[in-house]
Amino acid sequence: MTNLGTSYQILDTASVPPLIDALDPVRSLLGGSRADWHVREVGDGNLNLVFLVDGPEGSICLKQALPYVRVAGPGWPMSPERAHFENAYFRSVAPYVGGLIPMIHHYDAGRHLTIMERLSPHIILRQGLIAGRRYPHAARAIGDYVARACFYTSDLAWPFERKLDGVALFAGNKPLIRISVDLIFTEPYFGAARNRHTSPQLDQAASDLRRDAQIKVRAAHFGRKFLTEAQALLHGDLHSGSVMVSETDTRVIDPEFAFYGPIGFDLGAFFGNLLLSWYSQFGRKTPGDDRSAHRAWILEQVTVFWDTFRARFLALWAEHATGDVFPGAMFASTADAIALAAARNAFMDTLFEDMLGFGACKMIRRILGFAHVLDLEGIEDPNARADCERASLAMAATLLRHPEHFKRIEDVAQAVPRFQPRL
Amino acid sequence: MTNLGTSYQILDTASVPPLIDALDPVRSLLGGSRADWHVREVGDGNLNLVFLVDGPEGSICLKQALPYVRVAGPGWPMSPERAHFENAYFRSVAPYVGGLIPMIHHYDAGRHLTIMERLSPHIILRQGLIAGRRYPHAARAIGDYVARACFYTSDLAWPFERKLDGVALFAGNKPLIRISVDLIFTEPYFGAARNRHTSPQLDQAASDLRRDAQIKVRAAHFGRKFLTEAQALLHGDLHSGSVMVSETDTRVIDPEFAFYGPIGFDLGAFFGNLLLSWYSQFGRKTPGDDRSAHRAWILEQVTVFWDTFRARFLALWAEHATGDVFPGAMFASTADAIALAAARNAFMDTLFEDMLGFGACKMIRRILGFAHVLDLEGIEDPNARADCERASLAMAATLLRHPEHFKRIEDVAQAVPRFQPRL
Repeated sequence: MTNLGTSYQILDTASVPPLIDALDPVRSLLGGSRADWHVREVGDGNLNLVFLVDGPEGSICLKQALPYVRVAGPGWPMSPERAHFENAYFRSVAPYVGGLIPMIHHYDAGRHLTIMERLSPHIILRQGLIAGRRYPHAARAIGDYVARACFYTSDLAWPFERKLDGVALFAGNKPLIRISVDLIFTEPYFGAARNRHTSPQLDQAASDLRRDAQIKVRAAHFGRKFLTEAQALLHGDLHSGSVMVSETDTRVIDPEFAFYGPIGFDLGAFFGNLLLSWYSQFGRKTPGDDRSAHRAWILEQVTVFWDTFRARFLALWAEHATGDVFPGAMFASTADAIALAAARNAFMDTLFEDMLGFGACKMIRRILGFAHVLDLEGIEDPNARADCERASLAMAATLLRHPEHFKRIEDVAQAVPRFQPRL
Repeated sequence: MTNLGTSYQILDTASVPPLIDALDPVRSLLGGSRADWHVREVGDGNLNLVFLVDGPEGSICLKQALPYVRVAGPGWPMSPERAHFENAYFRSVAPYVGGLIPMIHHYDAGRHLTIMERLSPHIILRQGLIAGRRYPHAARAIGDYVARACFYTSDLAWPFERKLDGVALFAGNKPLIRISVDLIFTEPYFGAARNRHTSPQLDQAASDLRRDAQIKVRAAHFGRKFLTEAQALLHGDLHSGSVMVSETDTRVIDPEFAFYGPIGFDLGAFFGNLLLSWYSQFGRKTPGDDRSAHRAWILEQVTVFWDTFRARFLALWAEHATGDVFPGAMFASTADAIALAAARNAFMDTLFEDMLGFGACKMIRRILGFAHVLDLEGIEDPNARADCERASLAMAATLLRHPEHFKRIEDVAQAVPRFQPRL
């Protein structure tokens, strides 16, 4: 399938130091020499090796794409070309979201590896939410991030020729797009072999959803949008596991699923995973903490995320409407400005609808599909886990079935607690 | 801008025979030898040279892309790479619409030329409509054509990977897409230098439309869809001048504007040009023929076109739902089939809305923009021409402003005669 090239070898803790030793800027960043460096492999994702290297003067993170799906092993081959698309994504959005992604020190196309800033003391946002920690800036930062990354890669900001070059490039990211199509929009909705769910507790809920033709039509509708609406360059997998946070800093990582698609898909990934986090909190009650305050905070972040995205996207549009879509030359008068403002609001409403629909699809796939999330998987009691999952599914189904009930983000915030696990 | 390569030279009637002489299959198709061949240049489009070559045993048509816009001269350069995209389009759709495109005998990438079947006794449909002739099969054939070409290049028919390869390829057709963006969706709506209209008769109408913020927002909405909705491989310029007809045969030509876009754009091109033909008939009355019967026939063809497209597209979808969008595996039960049928009808409704919107944009650009159509331009009395144009503009404005009034094609057929020129 993929020609791995002669320079490709799967790295281990022994082969990392000599590789770095040959890279002057990275070596001097670590300080000392090969013998002084401490290397450990920390990858916990599905697709990559991740090494952290500490030297006397600094640290780096090295990520290598494996030629197979890590969680499945060599029996599920996967082109390591995705490192190329990850790198291309970071390069495309860096001018607009510079402080919200890691600094890239080195990219090696032949070895499918990237050496980047080691983020410290950052942890994965998903882990923080599970632990009951709050990151006061994260939702705002990600709302800002999606607005910037998507606005500036859309036809609103630049002549369309630039976007078409990107569309052609990222059209090559087919193996990763195939994963999204199959695992998000198709397999959860029938008895596909890779699916799994908490059984037998969720058997009935899974069966009910798979017989609900209306829900399936809605999921297929969003699957169609995913494949046809090339609005902007997307991260493609922007859940809480692709965000690293500290008390004061937020960074987006792992954009290997990048492609040109509907903006609501990135919005929905973050939105849907916040909702999953909310429902999972019921499975994490302790005698001293029923997690109600944490839940309330998470639900606030849903609103902060959307409101920040919306305000930032509209602000960018107002100050940088230099693309081919809604071109400035056509809207020069005061009457035009009023109509244009209404059109912009209407466009934001379509992004809101898309966020909810894609978010619901993301929630469902994490409960009935192949790849689950630690927020729920980490709940050891299967009855408690199933209760949280059942409530999440009910909320997701409502978002898909009744979009007319959700006109504003406040409607979502009010609806979420109506589906409470019985814990 | 474009590297023309060493083999490129602009052909003339003297250089065509030696070129053909070197192509065995084409030479034997013509019969005889170089001295027996009769060559004439007949191109009347904006972008190409077209030679017809007659030999003792057969004829061929040779089309060469010029490195500039023919109507403007070398001062408006234009990449002849478009011949490449025309050829790629024909190859992509040939398996599905074989009998409705010309047979391609030879493609020469270096010289940017295509040698194809000479269609005889065909004439351009637009010319036939102007002359008051009827082609009983044309609208049905084009409805069938758009359904087949678009269905089979969409994600409904094949795994998305095939479409993404096409998307990447046709993303290179930027110079032609730029023409469409500027001339259809942008320039007609403000005082752009290339615009022209029947003046002073239409000055007020042009000014009114350019101050109508609501119409401009709607036009910009369709411009946005044009650039973001990659539903299928489009011809990109499917007006009545891109269709050749005889009494019994219909062929689609000139797909150099091909790209992946919204299906309604191809539908709207044919639809909008039928409406322009209808309105132009008022300027072609003669003492013996007020053209009312011809108008009635044209309006019938609008309905035939849409009904044929819709029925064919749905039939193909029912029998060949093997793509990633609305995948068969998700919709296996009887209840699924009912919901799926409703979803398909809803999708056809969105294509109908798009046809009307894009059609209206196409009508407006032919009256207020740079490139006009002979149906109207050929009306010599400027007052009569302006009357036809004003009625066309009024209909187009209504289609854009009040999509809620047009739910079925019959609504269009009833509305068209309400805007009658005062002739």
